[in-house]
Amino acid sequence: MHYGSVAVVDAGGGLIFAAGDPHYLTTTRSALKPLQALPFVASGGPDRFGFSREQVALLCASHSGEPRHVAAVADMLKRIGCTPADLQCGIHPPMFYTATDEVPPVDAKFTALHHNCSGKHTGMLAYCRMCGLPTESYLDFEHPLQQAIRVAVAHLTGVAEQDLVAGIDGCSAPNYAVPLDRLAHAFARLATVTADERYGSAPATLAGAMSAHPEMVSGERRNDLILMGAGRGDWVTKVGAEGVQAIGVRSRGLGIALKVIDGNARGLHPATVSILDQLGLLDDEQRAQLESWREPVIRNYRGVETGRVIPEVTLEKRS
Amino acid sequence: MHYGSVAVVDAGGGLIFAAGDPHYLTTTRSALKPLQALPFVASGGPDRFGFSREQVALLCASHSGEPRHVAAVADMLKRIGCTPADLQCGIHPPMFYTATDEVPPVDAKFTALHHNCSGKHTGMLAYCRMCGLPTESYLDFEHPLQQAIRVAVAHLTGVAEQDLVAGIDGCSAPNYAVPLDRLAHAFARLATVTADERYGSAPATLAGAMSAHPEMVSGERRNDLILMGAGRGDWVTKVGAEGVQAIGVRSRGLGIALKVIDGNARGLHPATVSILDQLGLLDDEQRAQLESWREPVIRNYRGVETGRVIPEVTLEKRS
Repeated sequence: MHYGSVAVVDAGGGLIFAAGDPHYLTTTRSALKPLQALPFVASGGPDRFGFSREQVALLCASHSGEPRHVAAVADMLKRIGCTPADLQCGIHPPMFYTATDEVPPVDAKFTALHHNCSGKHTGMLAYCRMCGLPTESYLDFEHPLQQAIRVAVAHLTGVAEQDLVAGIDGCSAPNYAVPLDRLAHAFARLATVTADERYGSAPATLAGAMSAHPEMVSGERRNDLILMGAGRGDWVTKVGAEGVQAIGVRSRGLGIALKVIDGNARGLHPATVSILDQLGLLDDEQRAQLESWREPVIRNYRGVETGRVIPEVTLEKRS
Repeated sequence: MHYGSVAVVDAGGGLIFAAGDPHYLTTTRSALKPLQALPFVASGGPDRFGFSREQVALLCASHSGEPRHVAAVADMLKRIGCTPADLQCGIHPPMFYTATDEVPPVDAKFTALHHNCSGKHTGMLAYCRMCGLPTESYLDFEHPLQQAIRVAVAHLTGVAEQDLVAGIDGCSAPNYAVPLDRLAHAFARLATVTADERYGSAPATLAGAMSAHPEMVSGERRNDLILMGAGRGDWVTKVGAEGVQAIGVRSRGLGIALKVIDGNARGLHPATVSILDQLGLLDDEQRAQLESWREPVIRNYRGVETGRVIPEVTLEKRS
């Protein structure tokens, strides 16, 4: 059993539906990526370096290290005058293999380019290049880039800077925990704000690139690619490690955030689909597209069905 | 955060300490293995086929597929006139690699012998051979072997046969869910009963083999090997998938069972060590041996410490 909480807010950040504790203080992890890219995009970075819209989506990605991801990040690094050696995210086997149950080729060599956060880190390096800031220390909390990101996170979530709870992410970058409804608010803003008072069109640019290119934000057979595909351009979604999912819905002006408190995505995806359905966001075709995410079959090593994951979550109206 | 429950019972099965819901209906998974081996051992199987004490321990193992495990299972199969092709547990990469963070050699070929349950399945086949039962259908719920196991599970846990909740295990064998305190009672009996009314010395034989050869029950750097090593022969312990740990303590006549309800072992091991300490079972040396299991450090791919797992569980006295 996986316990969790859900917050659904309107475009103004007001809580309209909830399950569990909608103010639960949650780590955000990779769901923070679009916010971490705001300073770079708002400063005109993509135009300055000639990044494509796919590459803008990659700034917000937990990508799978597929060839298209690796090639696009390598190109971005070249454009900003950096190399993979400048990336301080570390190295892990590409998510592609776990997502598709494939085994890496025996001669496979993985680099920081394959790290699911390499797009985000490249965006961080790009901001440093653009602003003439040191790149060696780009992950330090005190670095001007990280200070600018902190301001952006506070602005878009509506949490005062001094109330942001800081930690170090799996990719070594500073990360922040916020109440669940504040994460939902940030995604409502990403989905609906066309001219932000501080960041102008940057939130819309990032969210638009994500919805248009979910294959660059995520990867084959992974949740954000499937979700944004089912959303037909209406939803901007981002998963975070340890059971976090954030969704912005343009047509309805909604922000949705879920957290499974034990951090297991097994409980997250079924709840996400159930919540989308309870909000009336799914038609029959979308329901069919997401069915295997809503009630995944559990099979053992011989392929025998041993059970199913069943979502048990009911949204309550708040006002 | 990982929620869970703990039950601590005396040798008679009476609840003496608890946290959460000590009657929580939990799957038992691999914690059931010593009980599943009872019919074979009580019928004199190990002597009949000349199994060593290490091999008796393997009947109860979630082993790591280390060379010693694979060789011992292969020898057992030969002794009973079966081959690896008779094992219906399936195939998975040996646990050795995940436990030690090593990568399998490029030319590695894994068979059913490497499956962590291959010892249990070999014991099941051995019972069939001994009793002249068909081996092809040994995993069917209606097979006389599985009926005999069902009786043994009911007997040792003290749960009526008709109240056992059945399911199919990850290795395709029938498995049973029981209230947590009943699992604890079964382990109290394993640790303390020398002459069981129905199974004679078989419970003691199995528990003794497990405590004497934890390296055959578990594997390098895994919890039951470390726990039973720290227990110096006094504890018989068995982990089960999805967050289950059962422990019998000979010197104190105790049975302990823990269940993390989300199934994540990340929450299980720290709680286990904390519970052992709260029961006054740890001296300074044991505390030091188990320290890294009590508060494991979480590191990211670059080796940066990003956090720690901290046990938050307090036993309450019951009478």
